Amino acid sequence: MATTEFNTSLPSIRQLQELIKQKTLVEWKLLNGDLLTGKLAWQDNNCVCIVDDRNRQITIFKQAIAYYQPK
Amino acid sequence: MATTEFNTSLPSIRQLQELIKQKTLVEWKLLNGDLLTGKLAWQDNNCVCIVDDRNRQITIFKQAIAYYQPK
Amino acid sequence: MATTEFNTSLPSIRQLQELIKQKTLVEWKLLNGDLLTGKLAWQDNNCVCIVDDRNRQITIFKQAIAYYQPK
Amino acid sequence: MATTEFNTSLPSIRQLQELIKQKTLVEWKLLNGDLLTGKLAWQDNNCVCIVDDRNRQITIFKQAIAYYQPK
Amino acid sequence: MATTEFNTSLPSIRQLQELIKQKTLVEWKLLNGDLLTGKLAWQDNNCVCIVDDRNRQITIFKQAIAYYQPK
Amino acid sequence: MATTEFNTSLPSIRQLQELIKQKTLVEWKLLNGDLLTGKLAWQDNNCVCIVDDRNRQITIFKQAIAYYQPK
Repeated sequence: MATTEFNTSLPSIRQLQELIKQKTLVEWKLLNGDLLTGKLAWQDNNCVCIVDDRNRQITIFKQAIAYYQPK
Repeated sequence: MATTEFNTSLPSIRQLQELIKQKTLVEWKLLNGDLLTGKLAWQDNNCVCIVDDRNRQITIFKQAIAYYQPK
Repeated sequence: MATTEFNTSLPSIRQLQELIKQKTLVEWKLLNGDLLTGKLAWQDNNCVCIVDDRNRQITIFKQAIAYYQPK
Repeated sequence: MATTEFNTSLPSIRQLQELIKQKTLVEWKLLNGDLLTGKLAWQDNNCVCIVDDRNRQITIFKQAIAYYQPK
Repeated sequence: MATTEFNTSLPSIRQLQELIKQKTLVEWKLLNGDLLTGKLAWQDNNCVCIVDDRNRQITIFKQAIAYYQPK
Repeated sequence: MATTEFNTSLPSIRQLQELIKQKTLVEWKLLNGDLLTGKLAWQDNNCVCIVDDRNRQITIFKQAIAYYQPK
């Protein structure tokens, strides 16, 4: 799993920071076909951590994400 | 997710910049088989952000893209 | 298999360290669709090693992990 | 998507340059199972751009290619 | 295929060295769903080489491994 | 596609060089499930080039290889 470039000047990193701030509900579609839904708690180089509607923490490796979109 | 080489002298990066400028409708085929359609809003090292026909923003990780073609 | 950034200041690395300490039972969903369950014994740049309910050690490459969540 | 090593002394890079020059029709088999056919227009670190039999440009990320062979 | 970090101080690298020494029979589950069984002959940055029960050498790219476990 | 470490002291690189010299018939199993058979013509950081039984050249990206074994 390559390290993401965690450069806060990148639009993609800033967009994730904004989703954390706004507590937006987001759909995360993964490379294995899984679809997860939850609010973004934190992100780092390797992962994002979301909280789903049953208040469970799920840590997703960024390497596994195909795309995400606010619900 | 490895960092793309974001070197604006590369044809592939310039091509994406042109698609943003032209507001071209593009099909994005992903490694998990998903097919997304939308206009390119922005790109950075890690991702492209598209707007679909229902005006929803979808952020796609470049690592997940198989190929893209203007519609 | 790219090397994870093994930087103990990263939340994702610290979270895994905490799971080791707490001996938490965790579900590991992989990019090939496999779902493994076990307690985390150790982690390094490349892998995590879990112990399942039949006390078997399974070494998972971090490159293969989609997401994980405490049971 | 890791950056290819774009070193024109590499046989694989030179082979692609030759396919551009010869305007050879090539089959591109991708990691998601897709099979594309087209002549190679250009290549860079990240991508190859092909033109198919309906004269459409398709930009393929090198990360997604399993193998290619002249038709 | 990214280079593994081949640092013999890493638990995962040492564990593979131990499996070589002990001539342990190991199951290797790959990202494409294949399941291979064999004893580990050698490892390097890129690959592991196993010998199966018909004494055939199979060289597995580390990039393709999901997980492994002693039988 | 990450660059392989092309270090001729690595057993995996030397093994491929030997397969070229011996003109061995090899089975190549890929991450998308494809199985190709052919003799190895050349290798570099990014790819291997094989010649199949109909004398066709097929260039395989090393990133796509799960494993290989002499027939």
